[in-house]
Amino acid sequence: MTYPRTDRTTSLREPAKLRYDADEAHRILDEAYVCHIGYTAGDGLPRVLPTVHARVGETLYVHGSTGSRAMLGARDEGVDVCVTVTLLDGLILSRSWFHHSANYRCVIAHGKARLVGDPDEKLTALAAIVDSFAEGRSTSSRPPSARELAQTAVLALPLTEVSVKTRTGGPKEEPEDIGLPYWAGVVPLVLTPQEPVEDDHVTVPAPAHVASAGRPVQS
Amino acid sequence: MTYPRTDRTTSLREPAKLRYDADEAHRILDEAYVCHIGYTAGDGLPRVLPTVHARVGETLYVHGSTGSRAMLGARDEGVDVCVTVTLLDGLILSRSWFHHSANYRCVIAHGKARLVGDPDEKLTALAAIVDSFAEGRSTSSRPPSARELAQTAVLALPLTEVSVKTRTGGPKEEPEDIGLPYWAGVVPLVLTPQEPVEDDHVTVPAPAHVASAGRPVQS
Repeated sequence: MTYPRTDRTTSLREPAKLRYDADEAHRILDEAYVCHIGYTAGDGLPRVLPTVHARVGETLYVHGSTGSRAMLGARDEGVDVCVTVTLLDGLILSRSWFHHSANYRCVIAHGKARLVGDPDEKLTALAAIVDSFAEGRSTSSRPPSARELAQTAVLALPLTEVSVKTRTGGPKEEPEDIGLPYWAGVVPLVLTPQEPVEDDHVTVPAPAHVASAGRPVQS
Repeated sequence: MTYPRTDRTTSLREPAKLRYDADEAHRILDEAYVCHIGYTAGDGLPRVLPTVHARVGETLYVHGSTGSRAMLGARDEGVDVCVTVTLLDGLILSRSWFHHSANYRCVIAHGKARLVGDPDEKLTALAAIVDSFAEGRSTSSRPPSARELAQTAVLALPLTEVSVKTRTGGPKEEPEDIGLPYWAGVVPLVLTPQEPVEDDHVTVPAPAHVASAGRPVQS
């Protein structure tokens, strides 16, 4: 499936660098632990907040707080958001300042997010968010009480206006720079899980999902 | 130094979790390679873009593209932005879904960004951005030509409305959950540089800054 190009998901400057493949967008959204959600606050000024998210089919669920100003606005008619997910894959050290860059995979999703009201949908969304930390985690931890569920806000953004932009490979260089006496290359970066730190009073061995936490799911 | 609290840098729900210490904000801004800049586009809707940045004193320089819609707006009277920098430090696996969380360090800076016009200031900003990849890199690569400089857009955001939010430590648990037969703890995450991949035709050994690229500066 391919997302349609819209005004918001095309670029004035480098239209060829944007892609619209849903599978590719899904993989990036699913690998990332954190997204940045942008909206225009009541004062007319922009806000960008980091939060956690999970995708269920073509819906992106974004975790919020019931006190946040964005969520209050979403209760009635929804809130216009831009959700951006960026995976940083490397630093490009070019022979010229101009061609310094980064390798990355980025998804930008636009649309009107609604506050999830239905308790069943909210449970589904929260299970997906918990499982995005570590596959299967939702069945190895306690589901929310009615009170906890009421205290949790979840926004649902339909994935309809979505673009993907990535950069891979080595430095781009001007032909006349190749002979310059400067080192050039890529420093790859990988978000790497460290040894899990067990909480006090744990009475069970770490299940397999703990070892998988922080590692991209192999698809 | 402490940033003043303003409407935009206080929280309705958890005001005690926000801090305003400039040194702490600087360390987070300086460690991060990527920021997310949010603004309201001409259509009145929010945009969030990832880009690279560097701090020089109390100015945050954000790399842009001369064709981007945000930059065009900043040319005359500046553009209202929210720049958010998030370092993800770990996944919190709690005994309850509700207390799943992340360890992180986040800086949010609000204000009116101006497009940097002065060539000297632009050079200073770009050197700082190149050096943010690897300390000293700007003196080991070619500065921009006049044409390259004109093709590069840099936004300057004065650091005046800035908040810091962090989470550290292990899972928070409800007292009645402590005895549940679920594993709980933290999976720390570290952005880790891999072996540098040298470009073709490099004629010099990798300088020390290449080994430091991708590693937080020890302060």
